[in-house]
Amino acid sequence: MKINVLTLFPEMFTALDYSVVGKSRENEIVNLNLINFRDFAKNIHHSVDDAPYGGGPGMVLQVQPIADALASIKQPGRVVITAPQGKPFKQAVAREWSKEDNLTFLCGHYEGFDQRIYDMATDVVSIGDFVLTGGELPTMAMIDATTRLLPGVLGNETSADDESFSDGLLEYPQYSRPANYHGQEVPPVLISGDHAKIAAWRERESLKQTLLHRPDLLAQKQLTRAQEIILSDIKIELADELASTD
Amino acid sequence: MKINVLTLFPEMFTALDYSVVGKSRENEIVNLNLINFRDFAKNIHHSVDDAPYGGGPGMVLQVQPIADALASIKQPGRVVITAPQGKPFKQAVAREWSKEDNLTFLCGHYEGFDQRIYDMATDVVSIGDFVLTGGELPTMAMIDATTRLLPGVLGNETSADDESFSDGLLEYPQYSRPANYHGQEVPPVLISGDHAKIAAWRERESLKQTLLHRPDLLAQKQLTRAQEIILSDIKIELADELASTD
Repeated sequence: MKINVLTLFPEMFTALDYSVVGKSRENEIVNLNLINFRDFAKNIHHSVDDAPYGGGPGMVLQVQPIADALASIKQPGRVVITAPQGKPFKQAVAREWSKEDNLTFLCGHYEGFDQRIYDMATDVVSIGDFVLTGGELPTMAMIDATTRLLPGVLGNETSADDESFSDGLLEYPQYSRPANYHGQEVPPVLISGDHAKIAAWRERESLKQTLLHRPDLLAQKQLTRAQEIILSDIKIELADELASTD
Repeated sequence: MKINVLTLFPEMFTALDYSVVGKSRENEIVNLNLINFRDFAKNIHHSVDDAPYGGGPGMVLQVQPIADALASIKQPGRVVITAPQGKPFKQAVAREWSKEDNLTFLCGHYEGFDQRIYDMATDVVSIGDFVLTGGELPTMAMIDATTRLLPGVLGNETSADDESFSDGLLEYPQYSRPANYHGQEVPPVLISGDHAKIAAWRERESLKQTLLHRPDLLAQKQLTRAQEIILSDIKIELADELASTD
């Protein structure tokens, strides 16, 4: 996969060297092409922003340098901008993008984009209802989420699937050594060696975590009949716990 | 503000040097304390993870190195972990955190945390329904969103407020030079010089963007009577446009 990034701060992307992206670049699975669109500014000062028409505080990234930087890419593929009005970036979007041969991300910084830049994008996405100083951090997050799904990137081919959201449920709690940490003990079933019981405990805990923290995920998911029975049982247990604390 | 980060990849955080965090560190508004919790591993190989009790793929970050690293911080303040089951990180959370003197972030990488680590956190948050290889990128995003709200960080004291989500509406479209870019023109009102008309256009466009792309924000917001009238008018206009395309 070839990933192009248009940014004023290509140095920030060294952060990706420490994630799976770094390894996948070494293995030539991902080719990250960082383009500083300041290099395409035609004015003598290489400035890329100007005051907004109509006045107001702040500056606006101009259309020309970004349009020319984008035109310099032979196969941009999808062109992604992050913006508050965008559709939410979710695991399903990462999965969709991971099938592409080419992706291009446009990163703003501090200021907004000239509206005409949005018209060049194929995808306007948002990673959440919060304000950042630039598009670089969300772009890195999207690149990380997308590239870790590429075949050969994660050591264990199955591990990309065995995680939260992939099957529509939150993960069950995990524990590692020591079995007793200052009195905090690992649930006995996990050290019982009984694999069927462990699997049943994990499925139940996965459903319970999801019910407690993300019931919206349950509403979206097609549960098996067995899972529905477990879920009813969890609800009765929780109701009993609630009643006994009154 | 003192921000502590427990991570296996402190090098990743150089990315923050290029955002407002970099400037606020120079100005001593933010003190970023990066702690590699591998330094607290007591075993001879400095390993920080182990196989999960009960079996299964992947590794689990162990409780001891992180507990000891956390104990080494005199005033951790809020202790934040990112996890899929967390409450969503939103602008209101950033605003709340920006009032703290101390914040501590725990970053996992590849694997999950031992469940007992979650019990040390005061805040379990999620930045979205997607899977990343580590907590570093979302932690940087949360640090960026939080620190840009600190007094003196942004050049213009008012600019943190004059943006999307701060007033509960999406921003109006912005334009900068040139007025005509290969036939794509700036809306004439913005170059009219009529400030009242510009302000009215911007308010209307802000409401229209929000209605089109994030109607959920309108439902949460207390509109003024004037804004309600504008909104009704926008709806009529959009219905007319829809009818004429039939």
